[in-house]
Amino acid sequence: MKTFSKNQLERYPFYLKYFKELQKKGIATISSPKIARVLGYSEEQIRKDLQAISNEPGRPKKGRSVDKLIDTLETFLGYRDSTTAVIIGCGHLGQALLNYPNFKEMGLAVIGGFDNNPSLVGTNINGKPIRSMSDLSHLTEKQKVDVAIITVPAHAAQEAIDEAVRCGIHGIWNFAPTHVTVPCNIVIENFNFSSSLAVLIHRLYDGR
Amino acid sequence: MKTFSKNQLERYPFYLKYFKELQKKGIATISSPKIARVLGYSEEQIRKDLQAISNEPGRPKKGRSVDKLIDTLETFLGYRDSTTAVIIGCGHLGQALLNYPNFKEMGLAVIGGFDNNPSLVGTNINGKPIRSMSDLSHLTEKQKVDVAIITVPAHAAQEAIDEAVRCGIHGIWNFAPTHVTVPCNIVIENFNFSSSLAVLIHRLYDGR
Repeated sequence: MKTFSKNQLERYPFYLKYFKELQKKGIATISSPKIARVLGYSEEQIRKDLQAISNEPGRPKKGRSVDKLIDTLETFLGYRDSTTAVIIGCGHLGQALLNYPNFKEMGLAVIGGFDNNPSLVGTNINGKPIRSMSDLSHLTEKQKVDVAIITVPAHAAQEAIDEAVRCGIHGIWNFAPTHVTVPCNIVIENFNFSSSLAVLIHRLYDGR
Repeated sequence: MKTFSKNQLERYPFYLKYFKELQKKGIATISSPKIARVLGYSEEQIRKDLQAISNEPGRPKKGRSVDKLIDTLETFLGYRDSTTAVIIGCGHLGQALLNYPNFKEMGLAVIGGFDNNPSLVGTNINGKPIRSMSDLSHLTEKQKVDVAIITVPAHAAQEAIDEAVRCGIHGIWNFAPTHVTVPCNIVIENFNFSSSLAVLIHRLYDGR
């Protein structure tokens, strides 16, 4: 099995986005040097990235087929499958994600939200029902839920994750700004404002 | 000048969060093996990370001073400075960020939002004024703005970023799910749901 670095995995959606723009413009083939100019990655990196998910070599003179690249990327990224997710914590950030228009094209079906706030439970946000946290196990008994998106405050994150794991959810996408732990069979990806901001601020004030 | 990898920079806020928890519990010193157990990084990585921002070596028997580590990290991460930011695009995601409670402790002062939606312009969100995009230059003439947080839809992102750059803003924190370009003197950090989701989904279905 091939292994992919985090940085490499993070580049694939950018390739896909760019190739889809080309497809929309009716452009049929694309070469690595052109991709390099637009996306700012090195040609060698691009060839390595695309080779890793496809067995078809680029043809130096003609480039690669845009349609085939899109097909390969969408399959690789799981956009063709349907991954189901619930949002735990329906405050401002959770509500923004319930309304986020791009998850569907990424193959992620957000099927509802969970919160303990009585003024939210029983309502709908963007057509998605908001249930009480104590109802999470009832949902997961009836329906497979792949991912719990954690948008509770930092102090409540570990408890929310523990409950999601108890309910049999294997993927945790943690937006809460804190360190949490999960059993080793659970996949967790931290999506952390503070980490991203640290990178930006450091570069902005580089050399201080 | 030391250089820091993106992955390394992303770890520092996790250290800081953890050390602050220790401080709250009254714990005065911490050793690398203990940090390793809690945060799940290797001891070698921890020593390297902390050494890179501090000249004080850890004392093998006693560990490092929690207070000093917090001080060093907060200074390094710029949490002691005040970085000013505006939010461009005040839809669901922009509003969630206008309401996000943790930016202040990260040294980021969000001073207002910009949008072209007439029903938003002139309102306040979480005490922050929402202005028309055409007013951005008026604000930046009067006040230094370090960072533009881009939360417009993908198709509007490049235009919003171009306008921020024209107004003299040097840092772009891009939440829009698309590839954008900036002049080489501008610092951009893409905070991309699709990239983070790609990592999660790939790990979740690893071996497909």
